[in-house]
Amino acid sequence: MTFDVWVNETIYAAWGQRFRVKRELARAKSDFQDIMIFESETHGRVMMLDGVVQITEADEFSYQEMIAHVPLLAHGDAKRVLIIGAGDGGVLRRVLQHRNVEKAVMVEIDGEVIRLAKEFLPNIAGDAWNDPRAEVLVADGIDYVRNAPAGSFDVVIVDSTDPIGVGEVLFTDEFYANCARLLGPRGVLVNQCGVPQMQADELRDTSVRRGKSFPDIWAYLTVVPTYVGGFMTLGWAAKDASCRAVPVEEIRRRAEAAGILGTTRYWTPEIHAGAFHLPPFIAEHLPRR
Amino acid sequence: MTFDVWVNETIYAAWGQRFRVKRELARAKSDFQDIMIFESETHGRVMMLDGVVQITEADEFSYQEMIAHVPLLAHGDAKRVLIIGAGDGGVLRRVLQHRNVEKAVMVEIDGEVIRLAKEFLPNIAGDAWNDPRAEVLVADGIDYVRNAPAGSFDVVIVDSTDPIGVGEVLFTDEFYANCARLLGPRGVLVNQCGVPQMQADELRDTSVRRGKSFPDIWAYLTVVPTYVGGFMTLGWAAKDASCRAVPVEEIRRRAEAAGILGTTRYWTPEIHAGAFHLPPFIAEHLPRR
Repeated sequence: MTFDVWVNETIYAAWGQRFRVKRELARAKSDFQDIMIFESETHGRVMMLDGVVQITEADEFSYQEMIAHVPLLAHGDAKRVLIIGAGDGGVLRRVLQHRNVEKAVMVEIDGEVIRLAKEFLPNIAGDAWNDPRAEVLVADGIDYVRNAPAGSFDVVIVDSTDPIGVGEVLFTDEFYANCARLLGPRGVLVNQCGVPQMQADELRDTSVRRGKSFPDIWAYLTVVPTYVGGFMTLGWAAKDASCRAVPVEEIRRRAEAAGILGTTRYWTPEIHAGAFHLPPFIAEHLPRR
Repeated sequence: MTFDVWVNETIYAAWGQRFRVKRELARAKSDFQDIMIFESETHGRVMMLDGVVQITEADEFSYQEMIAHVPLLAHGDAKRVLIIGAGDGGVLRRVLQHRNVEKAVMVEIDGEVIRLAKEFLPNIAGDAWNDPRAEVLVADGIDYVRNAPAGSFDVVIVDSTDPIGVGEVLFTDEFYANCARLLGPRGVLVNQCGVPQMQADELRDTSVRRGKSFPDIWAYLTVVPTYVGGFMTLGWAAKDASCRAVPVEEIRRRAEAAGILGTTRYWTPEIHAGAFHLPPFIAEHLPRR
């Protein structure tokens, strides 16, 4: 190795991860953020936005499988799915794996993220972009949910950046109220809520906001190595509390019917059910039930 | 902040974490390894051995609670516990929390680690060093298990460094055979097996070795943010497979009787049971059952 080039993640001022860079692939300044994609030595290709890791080829499955399969299988009859953000297409791909899904609308504000992901991270979305059930919009998610008809979706998945910068509006009272309105009677909203060991405020504050529009508020867990800081929480907001108490065997039956069982590297029926059991150091940040 | 001082962890050549250092507290070269303790800005005090993070004040509970409470409560009547390594005293403290434990022998090869931990990390062990049930030996674990009488312990906890350098002998066939001999009929051995996303070999190879001496081989999970790389596996080797299938309600009853229930920040009965459900990307490294 002739050169010793490193990228330092800058999400936390005094702690963080660094990657040795095999090759820089793209660097762009969109209307919304700075985008960088590079080939790492350890984690395949990596995309960063404003200095923060968004996705790596090596561990994206731990995030995508949990943010997509859990709400769809918990709902049990999710046919219409709205995805906000997720410009790399990885969530879209996992949602469309469910053979009972009839429509997946993906609303990403930054077309440059989609363009660069298609060019440099083609394996993340695979053929999802061309699936006839997919509708991909370059638009503002806050506007989309404001205008979507009541009861027009079964599940909303918010795969956004943290609630600073461009992602901030996706964590507001108005956004959650509109999501509640556009969801059907067993509707479920999930969204990424950061890493509580470092960002407990994010889970605490946004859970309170979700609670203003949804009767059942909780969080569930995944572990994504390059979202450094241990457990990541995925925020859970549902109209029907029974959705997160579906027995393991029923989850397995649904996953088999949907064509998911046996396709996953992280998700299993047992991990699905177990992910709702939070360690006390995380549960203490949720509103009292 | 006048100075911008960073420590880079060196466990992986091309990826890793870095800490901004508030103050360096100790640096020593023992007969076995280089030891450093510093005050970080984000994780309290941190101890590194040979460039690798061993413990931080901010997240040690996620490791100690899972490596100590799970085998003791799974056994159900653990009175005699052998701890190998764990020079900071954190495992000793968690083991002695169990009011039914009558004897905890801790064998740490490097007296300098104990000395520095007592001076600079006093909160990790608390009063455990002075507990009349504790016997702390500065000795080689491989010799200790060779000479320990058959059936003299109920649980063995190996809290070692990775199987390189000084920790290597704690992952050999001979070591595991002696552990099997010194354990009673429902005996359980647990040991840290690294982070499979980065160190799958460690889990795979040592599981095969444990399988030569124990009928029931598996692993269970914890998540320690500063053991970067996502899930950490704790290797499981038991004489009786029923130990890892104890129902949640029985685990809760045992934890209450032992004085553990309500004292933890990571461990709960549900997390105890769930930790044995491995994602496929980890389970694939275990020997076929």
